[in-house]
Amino acid sequence: HPVYTPPTGPELNAKNWQSESALRMFLNNLTAEVAEDPEKLVVYGGIGQAARTPADARKIVELLLTLEEDESLLVQSGKPVGKIRSHAEAPRVLIANSNLVPHWATWEHFNNLRERGLMMYGQMTAGSWIYIGTQGILQGTYETFAACGRIHFGGDLRHRLVVTGGLGGMGGAQPLAATIAGATFLGVDIDPERIKKRLETRYIDKMTYDYNEAMRLVLAAQAKGEAISVGLVGDIGDVLERMIQDNITPDVLTDQTSAHDPINGYVPNGMTLPEAKRLREEDPAAYKEKSLKSMARHVHFMLELKNRGARTFDYGNNLREFAMQGGEKDAFQIQGFVPEYMRPLFCEGKGPFRWAALSGDPEDIRVTDEALKELFPENTHMINWLEQAQEKVAFQGLPCRICWLGMGEREKAGLLFNQLVREGKVKAPIVIGRDHLDCGSVASPYRETEGMLDGSDAVSDWPLLNLMANTSGGATWVSFHHGGGVGIGYSQHAGMVILADGTDRADRCLRRVLHNDPAMGIFRHADAGYETAQENAEKFGLNV
Amino acid sequence: HPVYTPPTGPELNAKNWQSESALRMFLNNLTAEVAEDPEKLVVYGGIGQAARTPADARKIVELLLTLEEDESLLVQSGKPVGKIRSHAEAPRVLIANSNLVPHWATWEHFNNLRERGLMMYGQMTAGSWIYIGTQGILQGTYETFAACGRIHFGGDLRHRLVVTGGLGGMGGAQPLAATIAGATFLGVDIDPERIKKRLETRYIDKMTYDYNEAMRLVLAAQAKGEAISVGLVGDIGDVLERMIQDNITPDVLTDQTSAHDPINGYVPNGMTLPEAKRLREEDPAAYKEKSLKSMARHVHFMLELKNRGARTFDYGNNLREFAMQGGEKDAFQIQGFVPEYMRPLFCEGKGPFRWAALSGDPEDIRVTDEALKELFPENTHMINWLEQAQEKVAFQGLPCRICWLGMGEREKAGLLFNQLVREGKVKAPIVIGRDHLDCGSVASPYRETEGMLDGSDAVSDWPLLNLMANTSGGATWVSFHHGGGVGIGYSQHAGMVILADGTDRADRCLRRVLHNDPAMGIFRHADAGYETAQENAEKFGLNV
Ligand SMILES: NC(=O)c1ccc[n+]([C@@H]2O[C@H](COP(=O)([O-])OP(=O)(O)OC[C@H]3O[C@@H](n4cnc5c(N)ncnc54)[C@H](O)[C@@H]3O)[C@@H](O)[C@H]2O)c1
Ligand SMILES: NC(=O)c1ccc[n+]([C@@H]2O[C@H](COP(=O)([O-])OP(=O)(O)OC[C@H]3O[C@@H](n4cnc5c(N)ncnc54)[C@H](O)[C@@H]3O)[C@@H](O)[C@H]2O)c1
Repeated sequence: HPVYTPPTGPELNAKNWQSESALRMFLNNLTAEVAEDPEKLVVYGGIGQAARTPADARKIVELLLTLEEDESLLVQSGKPVGKIRSHAEAPRVLIANSNLVPHWATWEHFNNLRERGLMMYGQMTAGSWIYIGTQGILQGTYETFAACGRIHFGGDLRHRLVVTGGLGGMGGAQPLAATIAGATFLGVDIDPERIKKRLETRYIDKMTYDYNEAMRLVLAAQAKGEAISVGLVGDIGDVLERMIQDNITPDVLTDQTSAHDPINGYVPNGMTLPEAKRLREEDPAAYKEKSLKSMARHVHFMLELKNRGARTFDYGNNLREFAMQGGEKDAFQIQGFVPEYMRPLFCEGKGPFRWAALSGDPEDIRVTDEALKELFPENTHMINWLEQAQEKVAFQGLPCRICWLGMGEREKAGLLFNQLVREGKVKAPIVIGRDHLDCGSVASPYRETEGMLDGSDAVSDWPLLNLMANTSGGATWVSFHHGGGVGIGYSQHAGMVILADGTDRADRCLRRVLHNDPAMGIFRHADAGYETAQENAEKFGLNV
Repeated sequence: HPVYTPPTGPELNAKNWQSESALRMFLNNLTAEVAEDPEKLVVYGGIGQAARTPADARKIVELLLTLEEDESLLVQSGKPVGKIRSHAEAPRVLIANSNLVPHWATWEHFNNLRERGLMMYGQMTAGSWIYIGTQGILQGTYETFAACGRIHFGGDLRHRLVVTGGLGGMGGAQPLAATIAGATFLGVDIDPERIKKRLETRYIDKMTYDYNEAMRLVLAAQAKGEAISVGLVGDIGDVLERMIQDNITPDVLTDQTSAHDPINGYVPNGMTLPEAKRLREEDPAAYKEKSLKSMARHVHFMLELKNRGARTFDYGNNLREFAMQGGEKDAFQIQGFVPEYMRPLFCEGKGPFRWAALSGDPEDIRVTDEALKELFPENTHMINWLEQAQEKVAFQGLPCRICWLGMGEREKAGLLFNQLVREGKVKAPIVIGRDHLDCGSVASPYRETEGMLDGSDAVSDWPLLNLMANTSGGATWVSFHHGGGVGIGYSQHAGMVILADGTDRADRCLRRVLHNDPAMGIFRHADAGYETAQENAEKFGLNV
């Protein structure tokens, strides 16, 4: 299989920077440091791919190398299927991945088409060529914890104890995110290997097998307001039970065990890892039953700690649903993280603004970090994140940065980056994008649009309007996907990436796209009845 | 309730012709001559609306009156929800109607949201402001019959007998469409009132209650090659049974009784109309059983005539499904009309190209008709249609015309119309649009994408790419809908309308949009393995 490596430096390989930027970011998604399984073209998130087959990947590269500024490339579920007539202020690439007519929108039908080579699963940023590695999940988790600090603790999480289960692929971002947000952190994982991995990458500070030692460490740190993180090997249910007995109530309680998969993910209470592995294979039905019962027990303890005052939330792993199936009727008294922590941000047009230095030079990101700090000196929350990220985040592939920005800020930041490119302060153009999980780009009733005020959770007109807005505004590439995050049938969402190459053309496109894109979030939430969104619509002159 | 009337004439009410054209076509959709129920904002097709509420309709008008060329209006299920930054070569209006995340895409969930004022059913051209009255269905039916003539009878339908059931709202277009295509026509309807209506509007030539007279008339006409149409009052099943007994086999056999609704549509065999009405109310379950059995009997006779050589096809009324439920196991041996008659056209990028004269002057349409005949003197099929349409079609609302054009032709026609406007040959600008039922704009596995060669019927990446192509190319308004034609859950489709106002800007947009839009149909069908589409891709330089 080919080795995918994005070109770097200030020289063009394609005919213009628009095509070049798509080329570099496409290859960046597939490069070994970034992609989970480059051979299978899998970038992240299960089977989230950047192209359908290696032949399609090669073809995409060829076509991007020769694409003119008055053409656009069409990509259908990871396969390049045509070129159309276009113009310089329109997208260079138009992407539609994994979309199915609703009645046929099931994993069964999808997998059947996928096996026959007709489709690909695009996840969110895998098929839309703007995945940036673990920094994305780290920052998203940081935003959640920080929001929790602002909303419930009048500022930050200093002197607050955060407790959670699961320190795996994504959950492993929790200790670092929590300490960046100022908290003292205890994470429980049944698998010591997973905690060791977090130690090695410096995502967690200490590891122990001993409940008492863990408690001593975190309670002392909490008292002193020390932001440290401890990983404890054990079953999360058991640990919560003992904390209840010992009258220790965390300030914040959540969970990222892989509860979404009761057979291959969650480990039932009372079993060692090898026992669990054996039962999984020998009797999956029995395993599942144990798993559901354990989740019910686990959630039962979470509810008890919630009653005792712990701020408790579901972190998008479907734990509530399976705990309910296991017998815990009150499971859904725990709220999802979006309505409580993300939606207030969405109402300000805030979301996962991110950018990459096409030069490949980490120094360019340092320059943008500093420029942003100067641009928004009053945004201490952002400055805190940038400083911690500079220190703690290792780059994967092309150097990049993520930080959540809102209405107004995104446009300013984009124009600033374009100026840095124009003035030669960075060595090559910069691309700006975002996750499909954003304020106005997704309909996903089990996650981003759970529990909307007016009950419009399932209305997907909004991501479609977002797609149209970014396509007409002149994003450099746009995408529309189905099934990201929560799986086939459950979500529809739009992506966009826009180039800052220092030109006036880019200035015009940035002014439109980075204004309209967050405005969609404000329109959507104002229409659903959220007051802060309505106030922001007023403030930014968005009312009609 | 307000009276909706589109402004006419050469003067602007809005700030530019782009907004003005959207304004006029929006109001045209709602004007009494065009809309089925203006009070309820219903344009056609069940509950297909142009705006969500009268207040929304008023607001849309207000906003279009003040919309600048660097703004776009956002419409979410018939409600104007915001304005965004845009530019002169991007759409003025972006519309998303009735879209739901697949898992929630049912009539139940939709109706619930609709009752709470959160959604609207957009059908196809109702919510996208380019419905043109019955001319659309007439021309679509004509294309089907004409294709049947070309494919099975080496040219046209002269000396051919077409037999069908149902002469209602849409089915009533069949007699006129068939005679325009050269055929001798017999239509059977149980309700004499429906046939009388066709007589009044000159859609049908003769009406009789007598089977023998009907046969004498049509067999004589067929022998002489006379294109006449006869409406016979009766049950279609009974009539087919007698034709079999009498050894009369039609050349073409189809059906447009309202079989899709076994209770309120189809009338069971052996019942008078009043009897049927009574049973419907008193015992709908018994009615349904009778209805399904009658459909099975009806299809049984169709299959017999098919065996005897009649070209037999399903015309999108779901007759096969219900006949099967009624006991006719072979129902699906009858093919749908799309795979056989429409798809070959789709493979050439052909589809329902239509335009309206914003001046309101029918003379403008005459001018365009003549100009088209001059532009394509070799296209006798089109010329035949235009001449018949000039003679037989009465305008409803703003004068308009439909005629199916393919790849290449659409662009030429659009540029020609722009020239007519530029040179003052017509009195005001012209808008060009199409149905969402087109070659590359819809995924609908029970109709437009039934039985695709590669099994990709349900893949809806294609209409999304179509939406993106037309949005980036600079159509004047674009739309994306769910559930048109076949109902919520079963289709996704994109619409576009583009203005020819005589400017160079319009020339550029027309060159892009009217090239790309039919090209999408060729890409889609070439990718699915259709050889003529692959040849056309070659011919028009569309291969990548
Ligand atoms: N915010 C979001 O919406 C969001 C983001 C990322 C991940 N998630 C969800 O979070 C979950 C975790 O994702 P991941 O990628 O880290 O999964 P993973 O499988 O890599 O990690 C899960 C971890 O849970 C541990 N675990 C299982 N059962 C346990 C038990 N009884 N007690 C203690 N530890 C146990 C496992 O050992 C493993 O380390 C998934 O369900 C995922 O869908 C949600
Ligand atoms: N090409 C397409 O995809 C397409 C286009 C338009 C309509 N349709 C379908 O065609 C059907 C007809 O549409 P419509 O708007 O004309 O409906 P309609 O209800 O206005 O007309 C149906 C007619 O069928 C007659 N009828 C019912 N039972 C009969 C029987 N047993 N024998 C003889 N006549 C009988 C009724 O009297 C009525 O006049 C619908 O199912 C519609 O969905 C398909």
